[in-house]
Amino acid sequence: MKEKPKFGVIGGGSWATAIVKMLCENLEHVGWYMRSVYAVEHIKREQHNPSYLSAVEFNPEQLILSNDINEIINYADIIVFAVPSAFLGGELKNMTASLEGKIIFSAIKGIMPESGKLVGAHFHDIYNIPFENIGVISGPCHAEEVALERLSYLTIACADDEIAQTVADHLSCDYIKCTTSDDIIGIEYAATLKNIYAIAAGIAHGLGYGDNFQSVLMSNAIREIKRYVKRAHKMKRDINGSAYLGDLLVTGYSVFSRNRMFGNMIGKGYTVKSAQMEMSMVAEGYYAAKSALDLNNTREKKARIPIIEAVHSILYKGKDPKKVFKKLTERLD
Amino acid sequence: MKEKPKFGVIGGGSWATAIVKMLCENLEHVGWYMRSVYAVEHIKREQHNPSYLSAVEFNPEQLILSNDINEIINYADIIVFAVPSAFLGGELKNMTASLEGKIIFSAIKGIMPESGKLVGAHFHDIYNIPFENIGVISGPCHAEEVALERLSYLTIACADDEIAQTVADHLSCDYIKCTTSDDIIGIEYAATLKNIYAIAAGIAHGLGYGDNFQSVLMSNAIREIKRYVKRAHKMKRDINGSAYLGDLLVTGYSVFSRNRMFGNMIGKGYTVKSAQMEMSMVAEGYYAAKSALDLNNTREKKARIPIIEAVHSILYKGKDPKKVFKKLTERLD
Repeated sequence: MKEKPKFGVIGGGSWATAIVKMLCENLEHVGWYMRSVYAVEHIKREQHNPSYLSAVEFNPEQLILSNDINEIINYADIIVFAVPSAFLGGELKNMTASLEGKIIFSAIKGIMPESGKLVGAHFHDIYNIPFENIGVISGPCHAEEVALERLSYLTIACADDEIAQTVADHLSCDYIKCTTSDDIIGIEYAATLKNIYAIAAGIAHGLGYGDNFQSVLMSNAIREIKRYVKRAHKMKRDINGSAYLGDLLVTGYSVFSRNRMFGNMIGKGYTVKSAQMEMSMVAEGYYAAKSALDLNNTREKKARIPIIEAVHSILYKGKDPKKVFKKLTERLD
Repeated sequence: MKEKPKFGVIGGGSWATAIVKMLCENLEHVGWYMRSVYAVEHIKREQHNPSYLSAVEFNPEQLILSNDINEIINYADIIVFAVPSAFLGGELKNMTASLEGKIIFSAIKGIMPESGKLVGAHFHDIYNIPFENIGVISGPCHAEEVALERLSYLTIACADDEIAQTVADHLSCDYIKCTTSDDIIGIEYAATLKNIYAIAAGIAHGLGYGDNFQSVLMSNAIREIKRYVKRAHKMKRDINGSAYLGDLLVTGYSVFSRNRMFGNMIGKGYTVKSAQMEMSMVAEGYYAAKSALDLNNTREKKARIPIIEAVHSILYKGKDPKKVFKKLTERLD
């Protein structure tokens, strides 16, 4: 590990922009790849990302901006991927630079729709990155509040303590507190599954369930996450830690969550297709619901996951949300 | 236990009104004491409680209404107390009827300000009610959503399974699902402590902390509750159950919670006194913060309770909320 590692961030959305902002608090230079030539030029000229967190002001001299992913990969020692999981495959196709010796952090909360794999596992399996060089940056953290410099806590997970601490040190500042963890798998799953529960919360709201039910849903969801990640990777973890329960709550209770909004439309009677078209994007939890259920079905001892099953049957089997949730309420306590 | 036990509800507020509504779904007659002669007359004449949940329609022929507490105590086999803990002492002073042989359920989420005791313990210590005849009705449940007949889950706790099941059966209906538990102490403490965390959430909001911090606060709060109730009564319990975590969330995330509103005013700079005057009532969590801290201090092995300590020092020691919360953020993760 170099004493002064170079960081590169891959992605032009809100979360990528927030991470670049945090790194800029600590580093002289930060590498930043985004696909859009227009956005790169806009930031250089106007000091703001035109489309996301546009109130955040950057010093262009601090940024090594490029719309060529290879340039940033070659530049950086530690590469933070922060694009929606649905777009990651496309970005990686353009990558010719080698990832050998690089440290890869995923700030992506999702599953690769093509393979059903967690992002960490994808980099390990396809690019032969050793697991100790793979890490996860997790919330609970809305990018919008980072832009406002409101106090937020991150969890930085990596099997290698020293790497986790290095990344934590470079993201910490007045308004960001980082803790480290070695539970990459548990944290990555929790971050992924929470989007399914946010869809569930949205569906419930759309169907007319109230706050009393929402709290029961969240209380059941965290127990479901606990059972699920225990099957995925058994280790001692406190599921009520911020990276697990906190992350579930910040998403499940957010009225701005895209996943919750998507669920809300489904609950109000939109078809899956029309809700997706209306939102002009696909909520991460949509893919996660399929992958999470499929993976659970491959296990000899399946985890009990009634909420994921309910969301899956609505999204993929065309089942009636009202009926499915009526049945689901019998399975919660 | 009689085959058809008679129920009496003590209290005229929202929660008492909601409980009477649930009982009316299952019983031919329900006893109901409230202090206000006017309210009793109004319900008899207009079929609505004039001041609380006034949209709920009652059939006066189903109600045995009285503004004499003794009449209802004499009538009922199972008595549900649902007045704010601060008023319970005053109501009990008027009680001359005997509680011998009665089953006492507390739907009060609070600590008796005079003695610092939980309501259950108060009835046991002062009225010699055996513990197996004492129970708790707990949420997560806003009374307002019961009025709207929105699906809600209750937990009915009693050391005697049969009694718990009987009460559960008489509260369950289309929109109310009940589970039973034998963890009276843990559930009563959780229900009491959550009001302190709702004050904390309000203070944080008033000080300008955002949703990211709120989720970290709640994630730390449930761990604090777990440690606290473990010291109070060690037993196997899943702290993520609805009666514990669900109850914390429904209050901590509610913008209607009086405790949260009270905290919010404190965070915005009101003094404790002026916030109480402005609200023309005392939030339950105000007393709970003192009693909970005092009790913890009597223990040989104290539970780590940084959030309660922070709220206590603001409410009782006149400490500056901004400084206290700044320090608190260092103690959370």
